[in-house]
Amino acid sequence: MKISIAQLNFHIGNFEGNLAKILEAINIAKQDKADVIVFSELCICGYPPRDFLEFDDFIRQGEACIERLRTSVSGIAVVVGAPSRNPVIEGKDLFNSAFFIADGEVKAIAHKALLPTYDIFDEYRYFEPASEFNVVEYKGKRIAMTVCEDIWNVGNDNPLYTICPMDELIKQNPDVIFNLSASPFSYEQGNSRIHVIRANVERYKLPMFYVNHCGAQTEVIFDGGSVVMSPDGKVHDELPYFEECIKSYELADVCKGGIDRERPKDKIGLIHDALVVGVRDYFRKLGLKKAILGLSGGIDSAIVAVLAQRALGAENVRVILMPSQFSSDHSVNDARKLAENLNIQYDIIKIEDVYESYMKALGPHFTATKFNVTEENIQARIRGMLLMAMSNKFGNIVLNTSNKSEAAVGYGTLYGDMAGGLAVIGDVYKMEVYALSRYANKDGEVIPENIINKAPSAELRPDQKDSDSLPPYELLDEILYQYIEKRQGPKEIIAMGFDEKQVRRILRLVNRNEFKRYQTAPALRVSTKAFGMGRRMPIVGKYLS
Amino acid sequence: MKISIAQLNFHIGNFEGNLAKILEAINIAKQDKADVIVFSELCICGYPPRDFLEFDDFIRQGEACIERLRTSVSGIAVVVGAPSRNPVIEGKDLFNSAFFIADGEVKAIAHKALLPTYDIFDEYRYFEPASEFNVVEYKGKRIAMTVCEDIWNVGNDNPLYTICPMDELIKQNPDVIFNLSASPFSYEQGNSRIHVIRANVERYKLPMFYVNHCGAQTEVIFDGGSVVMSPDGKVHDELPYFEECIKSYELADVCKGGIDRERPKDKIGLIHDALVVGVRDYFRKLGLKKAILGLSGGIDSAIVAVLAQRALGAENVRVILMPSQFSSDHSVNDARKLAENLNIQYDIIKIEDVYESYMKALGPHFTATKFNVTEENIQARIRGMLLMAMSNKFGNIVLNTSNKSEAAVGYGTLYGDMAGGLAVIGDVYKMEVYALSRYANKDGEVIPENIINKAPSAELRPDQKDSDSLPPYELLDEILYQYIEKRQGPKEIIAMGFDEKQVRRILRLVNRNEFKRYQTAPALRVSTKAFGMGRRMPIVGKYLS
Repeated sequence: MKISIAQLNFHIGNFEGNLAKILEAINIAKQDKADVIVFSELCICGYPPRDFLEFDDFIRQGEACIERLRTSVSGIAVVVGAPSRNPVIEGKDLFNSAFFIADGEVKAIAHKALLPTYDIFDEYRYFEPASEFNVVEYKGKRIAMTVCEDIWNVGNDNPLYTICPMDELIKQNPDVIFNLSASPFSYEQGNSRIHVIRANVERYKLPMFYVNHCGAQTEVIFDGGSVVMSPDGKVHDELPYFEECIKSYELADVCKGGIDRERPKDKIGLIHDALVVGVRDYFRKLGLKKAILGLSGGIDSAIVAVLAQRALGAENVRVILMPSQFSSDHSVNDARKLAENLNIQYDIIKIEDVYESYMKALGPHFTATKFNVTEENIQARIRGMLLMAMSNKFGNIVLNTSNKSEAAVGYGTLYGDMAGGLAVIGDVYKMEVYALSRYANKDGEVIPENIINKAPSAELRPDQKDSDSLPPYELLDEILYQYIEKRQGPKEIIAMGFDEKQVRRILRLVNRNEFKRYQTAPALRVSTKAFGMGRRMPIVGKYLS
Repeated sequence: MKISIAQLNFHIGNFEGNLAKILEAINIAKQDKADVIVFSELCICGYPPRDFLEFDDFIRQGEACIERLRTSVSGIAVVVGAPSRNPVIEGKDLFNSAFFIADGEVKAIAHKALLPTYDIFDEYRYFEPASEFNVVEYKGKRIAMTVCEDIWNVGNDNPLYTICPMDELIKQNPDVIFNLSASPFSYEQGNSRIHVIRANVERYKLPMFYVNHCGAQTEVIFDGGSVVMSPDGKVHDELPYFEECIKSYELADVCKGGIDRERPKDKIGLIHDALVVGVRDYFRKLGLKKAILGLSGGIDSAIVAVLAQRALGAENVRVILMPSQFSSDHSVNDARKLAENLNIQYDIIKIEDVYESYMKALGPHFTATKFNVTEENIQARIRGMLLMAMSNKFGNIVLNTSNKSEAAVGYGTLYGDMAGGLAVIGDVYKMEVYALSRYANKDGEVIPENIINKAPSAELRPDQKDSDSLPPYELLDEILYQYIEKRQGPKEIIAMGFDEKQVRRILRLVNRNEFKRYQTAPALRVSTKAFGMGRRMPIVGKYLS
């Protein structure tokens, strides 16, 4: 049996576009003389469809696509993911299903049993878990069809579910496991995925064809990296990251084993490529082309400019330098040099006069008050407004340049530097921003060394440095990582040797600034715990705050 | 047996504060000579605790409170809700539990079986459903302890769950049902609640003591309205809405039935009271006092000013009138009159000079472009910035005044009139804003009639009217309601008789403006489907857009 796997970049709700991609891949697989082609989870409607699933109209459109595949495809079996209806009145109305279509028939539908409902996932919101498990027979082979999480309850110390679908399916003596996935990227995901696939392959002594989405859907990035694993636990093949790819394999070859084509996984390199795809797909899938951002001369806006240029092309990225009376000369010069290195359009708009007009308007109400964070915020907000004005006038979407460390502790101005349609590095800690900047320069200087080396400053008052109000980023990032990614509490973090006062202050800052993060743009997710839909915190709480 | 019910306003994560409230209520119940006092769901930690539940430290604090109740309370049994740990390694790590504490012992723990995972609810994200059901015996009575949703699978046409906890418990011949709830307000909820309680009481022929939270947690408002229902289906008592209340009942009296104390439920009156509580608790629970908002002379900011004044007191509400060259005289006069009626501080800051300073700064880049939405947005954003500056300087939190109709179709400026910490009427359609304004005037004119009667306008260009770019609100609201609350698709809405072009345009506007709503403040929830955490839509989708 020859099996094709199709790792494609689908688009949520774009049924016509997704179906066209599927039909094109089927043609390629037929040219390869494949017997069956396997697509990824919910490929018909894109993943995650979220509350679109609550619309009967949306479900009907998916059903129409399945029907078109059934009636129009011949000479190959097709395995696709789509929502299906639960015929039983009790329970949720839908299943998350894999359809096995061949010879003008839907030969089998396997429903997902393990419904991820954590982090960015909300599947139990929509779907009823499967309670029956059946292998599909096709051309003399018995196929165990599983959907994404269904294989993830194996090899865990703390299993999330009480059942294990493959333990049921194995009783029916399958020859091969198919897994249709939509498993999002984090910089740890590549290794976790191989680990889980191997745990299954070793437990059940079967080859596995694991097919993942690629491309980004708003903040969620899918890295592809689909895996064909032999029963000996060797990676027979691993498809490229972040790229579409269709490839065919003789099942007999896969079963032989002995080949190892696992790809290297470099954290910063993966983050870099993920962010480029994240920016590119945000624009492409919204039908947009052009971005704009403010270049401050600091490292955050510098790396965002680089990523945007790589994602959209130099001709589609425009930057604005917006110095104030507090900006240092080197900031403007460094920013200009970066823009020249990137060959992108830059303009300079000084904000001092607008700032003065605000001071004049507010003067009668601000009598006997001192320069404080108010005036700092006004500068940041003027910049945000100027960018939004350029955006409204010329159609360039504003890219937000806040990093995860600042977003965490609220070191940013709402409607100012926190403005923008997409937070490109909103899930990247400051120390990772440095690493990413060095990585961006690996084939020659793009970001001027001075930008990477100088002390970080918001330049909103004379001689301001980030370190005036924040602990050093090496320390801050470590504490934030323990609190955010690892969900450690104050007691546990202090026990690691961090200063108690420092820890309590940082955790308090994180919790008290939930209201700011609530109102910011979606941040491209590259870690196991990003701000946004994957981290849901009360604003009005009184916990560690 | 005498049973007390305690309908209290808890605060998420405020373990000390919640425990103090619980102990105080226990003392009152003891003075009433009650045998048992019943509190609401997760009262120990507040509801909804959201991802705080992922912190072991948070769970430990809840456990410490249970321990303090166990060791310090005597002479009365106490039923409280708190998270508890799942001792089984498979499945989620927690249960959502009701603790029955008496005589220095935790006599029983009942876990919630039906975990709402829809709209604003994410319970399966955290909790394992109960699989065992046992009544508790106390002083000769057999008590069926249920948690909130556990009673909601009875009397439904389309049940969400495959099991029904009371069907299990009834086999053990209970004498009475306790239900610990945290069931949020919507203007339809009061009737739904009575309907569901009655369906249970009639099916199981038992009295029910249903105890609900009251007060607001960010956007989610709990209305209280706890119910004691007799086996004959009569409302023996219904506690007040939106207020704390502790009351005791002889079980024998309740069992007799024949008394009907159901409260009247007026949609607009309930919305009014809910919003007042929503504003009040947002401030109180964040430790804040003072609000600020922009008064435009229009109806939206007018009703928000009224609600704020009623929630926080006249001395804590400040308004700014920010006319431009496009503002009509009547706008300023109407706004001033309203401020005077409310006896709140108002100031006037003209925005024309700031606007001109932006035009000057942007002039070199805007050559050969025409006045368009860019310049309109600049005006709205200057107003937003001025309010934020006043907020930063004086500590008043900015109240957002966008209504649900505008938020739906994106008729608002991000970082401009969409700024603010809390969207007070963000879940109130424009036609409901009118009704609410008339309601606010029911005891005498507070909102000047002219504000209610004039044609709505954003006044961002000469002679602008909302009706220039939007259909009449009567029509718009009806279509939005079908799409948002009722999840009807274009086909279904058109079949109701609405114009096809109009319907498709409005649905497209709703979907294309998801990015704006993503970045706005939490909106106090008063309907069955509010924007925000209860409605999760892809930004980068291609569905009806």
